[in-house]
Amino acid sequence: MKYPKLLQNLIHGFEKYPGIGAKTAERMALFTLNKLDLDGVQDFSSALLLAKENLFHCSVCGNITDVEPCHICTDTNRDRSTVVVVEEAKDVFVIEKTHQFFGLYHVLNGVISPIDGVGPEDINLKALIQRLQDSNIDEIILALNASVNGETTALYISRLLKDTGIKVTKLASGLPVGSDLQYADEMTIQRALEGRREV
Amino acid sequence: MKYPKLLQNLIHGFEKYPGIGAKTAERMALFTLNKLDLDGVQDFSSALLLAKENLFHCSVCGNITDVEPCHICTDTNRDRSTVVVVEEAKDVFVIEKTHQFFGLYHVLNGVISPIDGVGPEDINLKALIQRLQDSNIDEIILALNASVNGETTALYISRLLKDTGIKVTKLASGLPVGSDLQYADEMTIQRALEGRREV
Repeated sequence: MKYPKLLQNLIHGFEKYPGIGAKTAERMALFTLNKLDLDGVQDFSSALLLAKENLFHCSVCGNITDVEPCHICTDTNRDRSTVVVVEEAKDVFVIEKTHQFFGLYHVLNGVISPIDGVGPEDINLKALIQRLQDSNIDEIILALNASVNGETTALYISRLLKDTGIKVTKLASGLPVGSDLQYADEMTIQRALEGRREV
Repeated sequence: MKYPKLLQNLIHGFEKYPGIGAKTAERMALFTLNKLDLDGVQDFSSALLLAKENLFHCSVCGNITDVEPCHICTDTNRDRSTVVVVEEAKDVFVIEKTHQFFGLYHVLNGVISPIDGVGPEDINLKALIQRLQDSNIDEIILALNASVNGETTALYISRLLKDTGIKVTKLASGLPVGSDLQYADEMTIQRALEGRREV
C-alpha cells in the first residue's frame, strides 16, 4: 500500500529541489492537499510556468529579467563606467539593497570550478569581454564570494583584463562590521591586517 | 530595483509552505529558473494541479485517495473488525510499512487542540462514530502521536466509546528499540515501568 500515484508525482516534484529531502517533500505535498485551497494551488502552479516561460537572462549583463535588455542595463541614470561582477542574480539584489552602488552589473551565472568541470567558457564571461570592447568601462569591481572557486574566478578575470587598461578591483576582505575579534578565523584576520587602513 | 514581478510571485508561492522562509523560497525559485528545464517545470506545475484536483479524503476513513472509498476500505482481504485511528494520512503509510497490521484505518486529519480552537467537531470523528454503528468493529487502536494534543484526543475518544462495548487500546509507550536507557527522558522511563511485562 503506497500513496496514490498523483501524490507520489507531487512528492517527486518537490524532491527535485536542493535541500528538500523525502520527508520535507512529503510534508509539502500533503500541505498542498490539506491546507492550501484550490485557488492557491492554481496560482502557484501557474506562477511556476509563467516564471519559467517569461523570465530569461539579459543578453547584456546576464541578470534575470522579463525585458531585453534588463531595466538596470537601460537605466540612463546609472553610472555606465563601473561594472560590478557577481556570481548569481541574487547577488545583484543584495548589492542593490545597500543603495550605495549606482553603476551596472554583470552576472556570471556561475564560477570557474575545475572540480565540477566548469571552465571559463561555461560561465557568462564572453558577454563581459564584449561589453568591455563595446562601451567605455573604467572599472570592474569583482564582488564574487570569498570561496575557493570565487577567488579562482576573480584571479582569472583580473589576469584576463591585465593589459586592457581597465581598473580591476575587488571587495575588501576583513572583519564584518559589529563582529568580535575573538570569533574571527585566522584567514580573515590575516586579510584584515593586510588591508589595514590609516584612521 | 527588485526582482521581476513573475519571480516575486513564484517566491511568494514557495513561501506559503511551512518551514520555507524567504531565503529558501528565493533559492527554490531561482533553482526553478536556472536548473530545471522547461519540461521539468511543466511536469511539476501540472503535478500540483492534478494532485489538488483529483485527490480527496475517503468518505469512510478520511485517508487520501483517488477512488471512493479508498483501496484499503474496499480491500476484502483485510480484517474489518480492527481499526487503527491516526492523526494524518502519512501515519497510515508509516504503519503499513511495518507489514504487521492487516485491519482498517481511520484518519482524523487533525487532533483536538483547545489552544488552536480545534474541537472534536473539527476533526474526522463523526465519520468514526458512523463506522462503529454501521459495521462490526471489535477494537479501536489509538495510534496518535505522544503529544499533549494526541493524548487529549486519545482520552476524548476512549471516553466517547466507553459504553459501546468496543475495546479501545493504544500503542504501548516505552523505550524505542535499540535505544540507550541513559538517553531516555523521565516520562518515557516512567511509562516503560508502568507498562513492564514479564519475560
